[in-house]
Amino acid sequence: MRTVTYGAACSLDGFIAGPNGEMDWLDFSKDAQSIMGEYWKTIDTILLGRLTYEHAVKSGGGSGEGFPGVVTYLFSRTMTASPDPAVQLIREDAAGVVRRLKEQSGKDICVMSGGALAKSFFEAGVIDVVGLNIHPVLLGSGTPLFLDPGRRMDLELDECRRLQGGCVYLTYRVAS
Amino acid sequence: MRTVTYGAACSLDGFIAGPNGEMDWLDFSKDAQSIMGEYWKTIDTILLGRLTYEHAVKSGGGSGEGFPGVVTYLFSRTMTASPDPAVQLIREDAAGVVRRLKEQSGKDICVMSGGALAKSFFEAGVIDVVGLNIHPVLLGSGTPLFLDPGRRMDLELDECRRLQGGCVYLTYRVAS
Repeated sequence: MRTVTYGAACSLDGFIAGPNGEMDWLDFSKDAQSIMGEYWKTIDTILLGRLTYEHAVKSGGGSGEGFPGVVTYLFSRTMTASPDPAVQLIREDAAGVVRRLKEQSGKDICVMSGGALAKSFFEAGVIDVVGLNIHPVLLGSGTPLFLDPGRRMDLELDECRRLQGGCVYLTYRVAS
Repeated sequence: MRTVTYGAACSLDGFIAGPNGEMDWLDFSKDAQSIMGEYWKTIDTILLGRLTYEHAVKSGGGSGEGFPGVVTYLFSRTMTASPDPAVQLIREDAAGVVRRLKEQSGKDICVMSGGALAKSFFEAGVIDVVGLNIHPVLLGSGTPLFLDPGRRMDLELDECRRLQGGCVYLTYRVAS
């Protein structure tokens, strides 16, 4: 079964963007680039939330070619057609789609989203790994990393590593 | 100047207690006990939030003798008299009291509270160090570790250590 990872860079107080979408606090250190480069080799599928997609397009990442060698699914209940031929729009049964993707053969799967899409995936129990790059900042408010899925989930710590710039890289397996 | 530390055990999603006050997920490992034992030697003053105090009393920690060798201040706007002769009630100007304590001679100072009292101390800029023992659990909801102090704060990572039971011990100096 393919592993689904919810991965994010976040502040110590659990935000992935500031109150006005600020991401200027992100530290693209060599350590972080190296981790992302290694991780990228293990996946062939990305699950994107709509806001994350729109942010990527605004930042110049939406070239119409998607990510080379990677199948991209965009989850949105409000969009009516995919904004990009390289991106497959999923409007309904998000968790069911992920369950079916996990059963297919292939490399692993990465969830790139804010807490809202991640929450629905946590609720459905389809996330296997949480990977965080905790940055040394308190943002106060913004886009939350975690929203309440309505139940407690136990985790098992895998990696715990200090990165350049005072960042901390943690990975956990979702145990229950 | 005495160092003020906001220290807590928390879940990965930033709660210090579950939605019904649950603290059964806390892991009092030898590692955690050792860190607390060493830390305890460096302080002689504890700043308590009311809810934290009431929780400690319910849990059997309110013997009327306070913490031996430690001066305890209880911050509450609603209490009218100290519930314990060993505890000094502070009803007003919490930040001013902490500023004056910092200027006095003595050992360091520990803030034991939820996010509400900590927020007012962050707002006032009187917290120097944040020390967390991040437990491998997502609680979903509960008593938050951090509330929005209305501004961004940069931190400097000091310690980053894996503890028994999949816990992660992080300490940060508040930089700005």
